Amino acid sequence: MNGDLKITGTFLDEISHDIPHQNWGRKEWENDFRHMKKMGIDTVILIRSGYQKFLTYPSEYLIKKKDCFKPPTDLVKQFLELSDEFGMQFYFGTYDSGAYWRTGDMTLELDSNLHVIDEAYSTYGSYKSFKGWYLSLELSRRTKGAVDTIARLGKHCKEVSGGLPVLISPWIDGKKAVMASEHAITKAESVSLQQHFTEWNEIFDGVQGAIDVVAFQDGHVDYEHLEDYLKLNKKLADRYGMQSWTNLESFDRDMPIKFMPIKFEKLLLKLEAAKRAGCEKAITFEFSHFMSPQSAYAQAGHLYNRYMEYFENLNHS
Amino acid sequence: MNGDLKITGTFLDEISHDIPHQNWGRKEWENDFRHMKKMGIDTVILIRSGYQKFLTYPSEYLIKKKDCFKPPTDLVKQFLELSDEFGMQFYFGTYDSGAYWRTGDMTLELDSNLHVIDEAYSTYGSYKSFKGWYLSLELSRRTKGAVDTIARLGKHCKEVSGGLPVLISPWIDGKKAVMASEHAITKAESVSLQQHFTEWNEIFDGVQGAIDVVAFQDGHVDYEHLEDYLKLNKKLADRYGMQSWTNLESFDRDMPIKFMPIKFEKLLLKLEAAKRAGCEKAITFEFSHFMSPQSAYAQAGHLYNRYMEYFENLNHS
Amino acid sequence: MNGDLKITGTFLDEISHDIPHQNWGRKEWENDFRHMKKMGIDTVILIRSGYQKFLTYPSEYLIKKKDCFKPPTDLVKQFLELSDEFGMQFYFGTYDSGAYWRTGDMTLELDSNLHVIDEAYSTYGSYKSFKGWYLSLELSRRTKGAVDTIARLGKHCKEVSGGLPVLISPWIDGKKAVMASEHAITKAESVSLQQHFTEWNEIFDGVQGAIDVVAFQDGHVDYEHLEDYLKLNKKLADRYGMQSWTNLESFDRDMPIKFMPIKFEKLLLKLEAAKRAGCEKAITFEFSHFMSPQSAYAQAGHLYNRYMEYFENLNHS
Repeated sequence: MNGDLKITGTFLDEISHDIPHQNWGRKEWENDFRHMKKMGIDTVILIRSGYQKFLTYPSEYLIKKKDCFKPPTDLVKQFLELSDEFGMQFYFGTYDSGAYWRTGDMTLELDSNLHVIDEAYSTYGSYKSFKGWYLSLELSRRTKGAVDTIARLGKHCKEVSGGLPVLISPWIDGKKAVMASEHAITKAESVSLQQHFTEWNEIFDGVQGAIDVVAFQDGHVDYEHLEDYLKLNKKLADRYGMQSWTNLESFDRDMPIKFMPIKFEKLLLKLEAAKRAGCEKAITFEFSHFMSPQSAYAQAGHLYNRYMEYFENLNHS
Repeated sequence: MNGDLKITGTFLDEISHDIPHQNWGRKEWENDFRHMKKMGIDTVILIRSGYQKFLTYPSEYLIKKKDCFKPPTDLVKQFLELSDEFGMQFYFGTYDSGAYWRTGDMTLELDSNLHVIDEAYSTYGSYKSFKGWYLSLELSRRTKGAVDTIARLGKHCKEVSGGLPVLISPWIDGKKAVMASEHAITKAESVSLQQHFTEWNEIFDGVQGAIDVVAFQDGHVDYEHLEDYLKLNKKLADRYGMQSWTNLESFDRDMPIKFMPIKFEKLLLKLEAAKRAGCEKAITFEFSHFMSPQSAYAQAGHLYNRYMEYFENLNHS
Repeated sequence: MNGDLKITGTFLDEISHDIPHQNWGRKEWENDFRHMKKMGIDTVILIRSGYQKFLTYPSEYLIKKKDCFKPPTDLVKQFLELSDEFGMQFYFGTYDSGAYWRTGDMTLELDSNLHVIDEAYSTYGSYKSFKGWYLSLELSRRTKGAVDTIARLGKHCKEVSGGLPVLISPWIDGKKAVMASEHAITKAESVSLQQHFTEWNEIFDGVQGAIDVVAFQDGHVDYEHLEDYLKLNKKLADRYGMQSWTNLESFDRDMPIKFMPIKFEKLLLKLEAAKRAGCEKAITFEFSHFMSPQSAYAQAGHLYNRYMEYFENLNHS
């Protein structure tokens, strides 16, 4: 169907922050890329190249300078090989030491990431699927001090790589914006639409030229309010010459188990809201746990089937 | 065996409140009815026809007047067709806007449900399996103001449907009566047996004539105390001319994961306590997540096997 | 490879305290012992013979004197038969009434366990696989009043059984030492290495002669600090003539879901730290939920595969 918005990108949740690991080997990842491809995914985004002491690739810099652990597998290499094989675009996610989460000070993440960006591009930049960068430091309002860090990192990514696009994926400070380590699923105070616009206008202004794509996480506001936020985000992105993607969360924030696959109806509501808001692309966090037929959560495989059926029926109607 | 009490009814947890969705389609539901039938289930009870903005059927009233979302599937129709096919009795569960949970005021749910009851019976009343009503507003003590609401809704159900039976499933305010959104699994203060009797005597008196069956949830008190509560409940039901069923919870309230299938031994203890208390029927919340061979929780399939083996062995002995 | 430390023991988590039950029957347990054997496991340790009112075996003493429930299956008998069949050593875990967890007073568990030890050995001591005892009362610092209880129980075990070895598995009061019933995954105050040494020196001194093996739980401190603790533990064990095993936790304490299988990389880091610290044996809590190919958590089967591949590759290199 002309005009359909489908999910065509997914994060790869390695190193995972709060989703239990599936312990897949090469074979399982290869199967997963096959499932992704079948669903129409053309873009994979490494959620982060390292978190605290754990790494996705054997970074000489992080192992020597930051005492990180040498990983048993080079996942970046593996994902790039699979991306080459399956014709995907790979976005490299930056490093997260955990310092920003603990202190709220994003500048603590700047220096190491300038090194990581250099190292990553010199090691992996020759893969044909290396197509972009993802700045894994998630900002929202009240982290405006972070604007400079994001801008500097974005510019550095583009400089070393001949201008490859840079993606960020911030969160809206809505009622469901609670930490996974909290038990509650909602909070009382959240940002208003007007505040959201004012604050993000300032942030977009500060990162203009350094960031190409903004994909807001779509799970922090109520379903009936999402479209309004998506439209504002699109308006801001247009104003500052960026693309507006939606980061469609395929897990369910309304349940006491943190986290399980989302109900198909909710996914569809969010996808349709993004379509009406004019989002250029929909990516999801994330396919392998929450939508894959081989996920440890069997609900994910059923979600995949519902999703495939839905678009098949649309095309036949 | 004569005198055995077996599980012969289950809730259908659509729309789910706090159990992650399985994303089943028609085929999976049909298989599930087959599994239920094999286990001896003859009664299915829709837990609620809608929750907040989400609906099980395309209710013109709730979509137009309450801004609910139009559901992608008519689950009520689907469940009635399957109930017809498998010879089950279907109980229709009323609507829950969420207002009662937020405010404690059940009267806020009255008006919309009078409309929903009319609409549901005029749309689906002709199915031969439409055999009863379930008032989904869960009351316990301290919600005595709710008695009038429950009575009015019960009477309305009976009036529009030629007297079809009305079921409620309250909870005992025991030590495990904590919200799923709380992290704790027990609380310090809980109701005494005597208080329970006094308060429920008053409630039963208030709903007499409007309610036919009371099925207390059986998971909020310690296993060793359950029988005493069930016996009191049976005594009250007898006094006011109602049936006393047990709502045997097939998930485990003692675990930090909220919620997973219960250990078979615990299920059996509760079923035997209900038998000794003289309960007329045992229903469970609920088969499809916690006892089904095709549940996403593999522990459920094993529970099904243990349950089937147990009664097979009883019959051969 | 000479010098490799592999996992050669596992707890059997019956009665489970905070891990949802898998509802396995005899057939599933037999399969699980087969999987264990294939991985190199030669030792199985019953985590506890009873918890609160629930029992693993029909203890006349606990049913009559403590109002415990008669279990539907004699799991101790079953595990001993399977241990005989598969050539495993079985360690019997003592009873936990729950009183110590509620009050912090371990002496409340002494008397009943003296009876349980007698009963267990007279009932099951003739199985050839009955090879040791596990004192299921988990102590850490601040429970030093518990030293006498542990010492008396250990001595009693040895007296009734002709000196069979006695195992304890304490926890380090590290940053991840939070209760499963708490939502947080870390805490601010934790013990220092020096304090740990001083306090445990005193405890080891108090239980000397009554305890043969100490297997500290390895999940309560950060990965980068584990080796230091393991080395201290080994030094203490050597000083007091005990063996130092590691109790390698195969679930992930860093995730909001409590609990899911650990990431293979983390398991490997901990196993290597234990090897460098000179641990005589590695046991895990526990195989059947977190490493078994038939676990309800599919991540466990993948962990098993990663583990088997890793040691296969080591042997070929």
